[in-house]
Amino acid sequence: MRTYLSCTPCFARQAWESVSMASGDEAVRERVMRRVLSAISAMDFNRPPPAMGAEIHRIVRRETGDPDPYAGAKSDLTRMALRLLPKLEERVGSSADPLDTALRISIAGNIMDFSITSSMREDAVLETLEDSLRKPFLRGGAGDLAGRLASAQSILFLADNAAEIVFDRPLLSMMPRGRVTVAVKGSPVINDATMEDAGAAGLASVARLIDNGSDVPGTLLESCSPRFRDEFSRAEIVVSKGQGNYETLSDAPREVFFLLRAKCATICEDLGCSMGDILVHRAVPAGSTR
Amino acid sequence: MRTYLSCTPCFARQAWESVSMASGDEAVRERVMRRVLSAISAMDFNRPPPAMGAEIHRIVRRETGDPDPYAGAKSDLTRMALRLLPKLEERVGSSADPLDTALRISIAGNIMDFSITSSMREDAVLETLEDSLRKPFLRGGAGDLAGRLASAQSILFLADNAAEIVFDRPLLSMMPRGRVTVAVKGSPVINDATMEDAGAAGLASVARLIDNGSDVPGTLLESCSPRFRDEFSRAEIVVSKGQGNYETLSDAPREVFFLLRAKCATICEDLGCSMGDILVHRAVPAGSTR
Repeated sequence: MRTYLSCTPCFARQAWESVSMASGDEAVRERVMRRVLSAISAMDFNRPPPAMGAEIHRIVRRETGDPDPYAGAKSDLTRMALRLLPKLEERVGSSADPLDTALRISIAGNIMDFSITSSMREDAVLETLEDSLRKPFLRGGAGDLAGRLASAQSILFLADNAAEIVFDRPLLSMMPRGRVTVAVKGSPVINDATMEDAGAAGLASVARLIDNGSDVPGTLLESCSPRFRDEFSRAEIVVSKGQGNYETLSDAPREVFFLLRAKCATICEDLGCSMGDILVHRAVPAGSTR
Repeated sequence: MRTYLSCTPCFARQAWESVSMASGDEAVRERVMRRVLSAISAMDFNRPPPAMGAEIHRIVRRETGDPDPYAGAKSDLTRMALRLLPKLEERVGSSADPLDTALRISIAGNIMDFSITSSMREDAVLETLEDSLRKPFLRGGAGDLAGRLASAQSILFLADNAAEIVFDRPLLSMMPRGRVTVAVKGSPVINDATMEDAGAAGLASVARLIDNGSDVPGTLLESCSPRFRDEFSRAEIVVSKGQGNYETLSDAPREVFFLLRAKCATICEDLGCSMGDILVHRAVPAGSTR
């Protein structure tokens, strides 16, 4: 997906929220904002939004000297998510359609996204959870995905945010043992999950873990490691979580199942859906027969 | 008031909302956004936010060729406000403290501000009205202003937005006849009131009208005409409506009564108040004994 002009105010907001969190030094904050605004003013709108997101957060990290401004927020959110996990597992266990419930819980976790808002309270997460358990899935990919998971030989699951990955655990647990790989980011960017966050979330108990070698808040294939790209092209099923991964992979050269909650007007415009909709969207390359 | 770094995302949002309204041409929109973002990246943060607002809207007008992108929206809102006027006058007429009620109605009108939001429905306006009639005034300037209005020889009232000026009419009507001058903007910027808007709002029936000769969404004295500046310094009482006028006149070289509703986090930080607070704030130059 290309970057829309309507993304530009949001880039500025993201930069401001990020540098406010990372530094209290007014001169540093000003330098970051000037550099970010100048970068946005010259950006290539044919690239997906996370390409600019990566540039913004590189500027923030470089100018503040803080390699991971969201580290504290990520741990706090992960602890909260882990506290909720037994309840989530209970919901799946008591569901008439456990896989459907696990899918919904995974998508609900997508609310814990600091590129959209830098504050997140437990009641807001629980409200999103109930909302996701109630509302219809758009795009009809859910049944398709459910039908194929059980017999799949290899599944690559592209994680989105720290803490959100705790909400992915019930879903990952229902996939065939030993055939699931979860890919996280190569290094910290916003609150995207890294190997460290995956460890804290206990993901190693339900899947093999790799990182994608990239610091882009999405999956920009050209920024990923050759090893990751190889796994991406070989996996029988690719499941992608969240907006950043959608924005970077919507035109990917292979089939991808996108799981997301529509959280901004621009994504809604691109997907033809409404704010807050939950979707399992199976995308295939143009011209593909699958 | 200087520009805060937190204003920068808001400038980008304002530019985007404005150019989306003014042009459907993607190339024009892109050119505007690139120029605006570049201008923000190089701005002088010692100047007040409306100085950048003026620059943004000059870029929008120049690139789109539309001298008044908000003309239609201003007329629509003015018609709505005029429809509500009899009700507003009734509220003042039946009030135990008519001047207090008129002040509150004037401040409630301040919600019709397209620099904050580009959509405005009647129910939102009415809700703000009831809220303003209910809540306490901060800063205690209301009693002070009320006490001095009746005997004032000359009052200069700095209007804010089109349509909002309809809500100022009950207050203006209660000021001493023949001693009130309302100043509007010299030319269109966002939905700020111009001479044409003042005419449509029927303001000529309650006050003498002048324009300030400026296209800044506020009152940046150095951008105003000598005639306006002369009236500004000579008036016995200056009453200033809205955030833009506060941002440009908070350090003015004379006493000013600011009437406003706090509509953004940055103003709240500057004024030490909360979102949605209503205030009559009497400001005097530092070191003044009045």
